[in-house]
Amino acid sequence: MAAAAAPPPPPTPAPEPALILSQNTPLGHPIFTRIRLATPSDVPHLHKLIHQMAVFERLTHLFSATESSLSATLFPSTTTAPQPFHSFTIFILEVSPTPFIDTPNNTFYNPTVKVVNLDLPVEDPERETFRVQNGSDVFVAGFVLFFPNYSTFLGKPGFYVEDLFVRECYRRKGFGKMLLSAVAKQAVKMGYGRVEWVVLDWNINAIKFYEEMGAKILQEWRICRLAGEALEAYGGAD
Amino acid sequence: MAAAAAPPPPPTPAPEPALILSQNTPLGHPIFTRIRLATPSDVPHLHKLIHQMAVFERLTHLFSATESSLSATLFPSTTTAPQPFHSFTIFILEVSPTPFIDTPNNTFYNPTVKVVNLDLPVEDPERETFRVQNGSDVFVAGFVLFFPNYSTFLGKPGFYVEDLFVRECYRRKGFGKMLLSAVAKQAVKMGYGRVEWVVLDWNINAIKFYEEMGAKILQEWRICRLAGEALEAYGGAD
Repeated sequence: MAAAAAPPPPPTPAPEPALILSQNTPLGHPIFTRIRLATPSDVPHLHKLIHQMAVFERLTHLFSATESSLSATLFPSTTTAPQPFHSFTIFILEVSPTPFIDTPNNTFYNPTVKVVNLDLPVEDPERETFRVQNGSDVFVAGFVLFFPNYSTFLGKPGFYVEDLFVRECYRRKGFGKMLLSAVAKQAVKMGYGRVEWVVLDWNINAIKFYEEMGAKILQEWRICRLAGEALEAYGGAD
Repeated sequence: MAAAAAPPPPPTPAPEPALILSQNTPLGHPIFTRIRLATPSDVPHLHKLIHQMAVFERLTHLFSATESSLSATLFPSTTTAPQPFHSFTIFILEVSPTPFIDTPNNTFYNPTVKVVNLDLPVEDPERETFRVQNGSDVFVAGFVLFFPNYSTFLGKPGFYVEDLFVRECYRRKGFGKMLLSAVAKQAVKMGYGRVEWVVLDWNINAIKFYEEMGAKILQEWRICRLAGEALEAYGGAD
């Protein structure tokens, strides 16, 4: 079955399909979604997703990550590597036209599975590139990368969302909200005080969306960044 | 000796003092400074410093940290607690009118000691409150709290500076720069790509200072914050 690529069903309903529909098959075009912790084997897909994000933001001149730099920094192999949620953490959004048959429990995060009913099937031009493994019917659709930050006034940590990305053909279906919500849920579960991220001031639609979900946009604060040669100079000076 | 509180030396130089001056005693009013990693025993001082920061920023209504919440979140006693620099990290700035006699090496960070020569001695009205321990001649003057963040484009971590605070009587002497520079040095040492922090857009003097040290002010980005009831609602919703 390939709901994402199949044509819409014939418009004339027959008794049998109606009967089938009542047996747990949602109306429309169901797509099965799963949010899980990323593993080192996700790095090739992550690298491609981050590059797509750089293209989307017209910032490819700033893109210098490699699969190897991502592996070394996101999945360090040292014995003292922090646990998920206590350092850089990635949720992967997977989609499938068929129910997930194996969703193993994870010590740190039990994957969340949800069926979303779409009006139209999704045509994914990059199915093969983002197929999770040979022969599987599961595809990577997006990710969110976040890590703890800290509020001294609250005296407690929060989460900072560095990146939230959903591939083009899966946008405007609520998947971005699902990823952000998964981070918020985890923050609440851990007793954390805040979830924060940044938005471009001209991105009015995004700002409206964030305000509607209850986020405050801090208008007065500006980010300062020391990087490259200026960082080397400052960090090397006395 | 108490250079911080003592009156200036008599204006008439005598041969003996001049001789003493040539023996490693700098001209003017020397103050000895030391930057070291914070320990759990610094929490009472840290709590007071953070409260002073809230007063300075007129944000005491947002201040709800307690010594116990700071201890639990900044110095967790679990065996899986991340190492310094891999999670929330605090440098304490100590000052003393006399040379530090014991600066033990630290596994993670060797304290940096520097003598600063001031034109005038410092009058510290809170000496007793911020004395490091009974009988010592060492006082806490400020702190910087920072933690790793991550750039997916660079494929490497950086440091985010959440707070930088120097007590009122020690300001305008380059101590803030010393603390920020210690973070930058550590970033360079670890091969990190960036040091970031935020500034209020009306704080023109601070912005000028940051630009002069080579930092870029990102004008287009705004911080979004989901907190309190909105976070609970969003994190609890499906």
